[in-house]
Amino acid sequence: MTDQTASPTSSPGSTLIQRISLSHPRSGDEGQLYADALQALADCATACTVCADACLSEENAASMIECVRVDLLCAAICAATTQAVAGAPEEHSSIMRAQLQACIEACRSCAAECEQHAGHHEHCRLCAEACRRCEQACEALLAVIGR
Amino acid sequence: MTDQTASPTSSPGSTLIQRISLSHPRSGDEGQLYADALQALADCATACTVCADACLSEENAASMIECVRVDLLCAAICAATTQAVAGAPEEHSSIMRAQLQACIEACRSCAAECEQHAGHHEHCRLCAEACRRCEQACEALLAVIGR
Amino acid sequence: MTDQTASPTSSPGSTLIQRISLSHPRSGDEGQLYADALQALADCATACTVCADACLSEENAASMIECVRVDLLCAAICAATTQAVAGAPEEHSSIMRAQLQACIEACRSCAAECEQHAGHHEHCRLCAEACRRCEQACEALLAVIGR
Amino acid sequence: MTDQTASPTSSPGSTLIQRISLSHPRSGDEGQLYADALQALADCATACTVCADACLSEENAASMIECVRVDLLCAAICAATTQAVAGAPEEHSSIMRAQLQACIEACRSCAAECEQHAGHHEHCRLCAEACRRCEQACEALLAVIGR
Repeated sequence: MTDQTASPTSSPGSTLIQRISLSHPRSGDEGQLYADALQALADCATACTVCADACLSEENAASMIECVRVDLLCAAICAATTQAVAGAPEEHSSIMRAQLQACIEACRSCAAECEQHAGHHEHCRLCAEACRRCEQACEALLAVIGR
Repeated sequence: MTDQTASPTSSPGSTLIQRISLSHPRSGDEGQLYADALQALADCATACTVCADACLSEENAASMIECVRVDLLCAAICAATTQAVAGAPEEHSSIMRAQLQACIEACRSCAAECEQHAGHHEHCRLCAEACRRCEQACEALLAVIGR
Repeated sequence: MTDQTASPTSSPGSTLIQRISLSHPRSGDEGQLYADALQALADCATACTVCADACLSEENAASMIECVRVDLLCAAICAATTQAVAGAPEEHSSIMRAQLQACIEACRSCAAECEQHAGHHEHCRLCAEACRRCEQACEALLAVIGR
Repeated sequence: MTDQTASPTSSPGSTLIQRISLSHPRSGDEGQLYADALQALADCATACTVCADACLSEENAASMIECVRVDLLCAAICAATTQAVAGAPEEHSSIMRAQLQACIEACRSCAAECEQHAGHHEHCRLCAEACRRCEQACEALLAVIGR
């Protein structure tokens, strides 16, 4: 079984999030990059929220505290970045750029932390996967905006 | 083209969000209902955020203001409900019940508002679809918790 | 030193949050109740966020996990309730009512949890104080809306 | 009447948010800067949320749409930054730095937008005030972290 969500090879607009993103009246040439970023951000925000709570439920919770922290921070940053990607008007693209950079930083750190626990906790393995996809989607979008 | 996200008939854990939910150490008999709710909440939160901004971008933005408002409120409530579904321990199930009820109310109102504009705005049609799925997923979960 | 923030006896609109709430064009006879609720929600959301992280930083973190969980949930619910109180139009008062009820439930549970640790951790004592004020402010608002 | 909230000259820890921040077990030499930032972020997040809804309620709502957008974005970014300031461990200070930079950018843009309407709308005048304080508090914190 493979997971198609936010796949870089998914057909355009194949998820509900991708389709609504592409239906935005200001969606243009780079609409697919926005759609992919919104899908990856939604997956990552929820994955991090679940991973944080799952870490707190593990028998070795005391040794997962840094993972809980970076999970919670990454989830909060993905939520703010969703607002930036959904709503940043042209005039405010400097905010979107800065927020994408913060999100890339958060996803990278969270992925690195979760990857350390991926062998023991399936939720950490999946969370790291969501973070890496989100990092890539944000980088792809950052590469084309505000130039 | 059909959208399989959060489908009530999807195979267990077929999306990343569903799989990470099912990997939670406290996932039990009703794990699939939690997984479906988390997927529907993620889709609905992003759909509402995009729909709000899309409404503000329409030529008839002035007549879409109530839709913007209920979109923003539904998005915020879905985010809080995600935290409740991901993390409410048994002892706090009264909070989860109350938050699911608020979410059902928000999704129902937002769907009803968006359905009025579905003929003119594709983003409203898709947002209503996301809200109806989320309403159903929250109702299915509410039916089994805290008894 | 006493803390006047969100005090039931504070002069009308004495904080920035209270003043901006009262400047809303739809602020009416019950504007002070909205203003007090927004102030209490802002204090409670931040207090719970800080308390959750502080609990994770304590030497006895492993025994504070339920407190972390209910802190995080209360913070998320306060954020959604802020959106409801700031923006729920008359037509959507059923959402605001349901969200206020969820918030009262969350604040009550979080206060009860934090009060158990108030003798050992100052952050729990202060968080419980913020939760009790927020519970009261939400109840006062709930008593007057949607009748 | 003057507003003391988050004033740079306020006595240390005089608000509930400042006091709980200073009670965090990792609060150190620069604790007051964290406390001031958390207070300013809470005020700014709520001010922006109220201002967005108030703009939608004005008779000239159609001409306030850019203000609504940047208000919503600034509110979401302040919420994520609160999580960063409350919880970023030493190891993750690069995330906190990036998030503070995004917040400074958002507050600056939102203040500039609201200042254009400050003569007509009291909520824009107060929101701009909250944004400027938050911008300054984030800059003061950014100047001392991660060196």
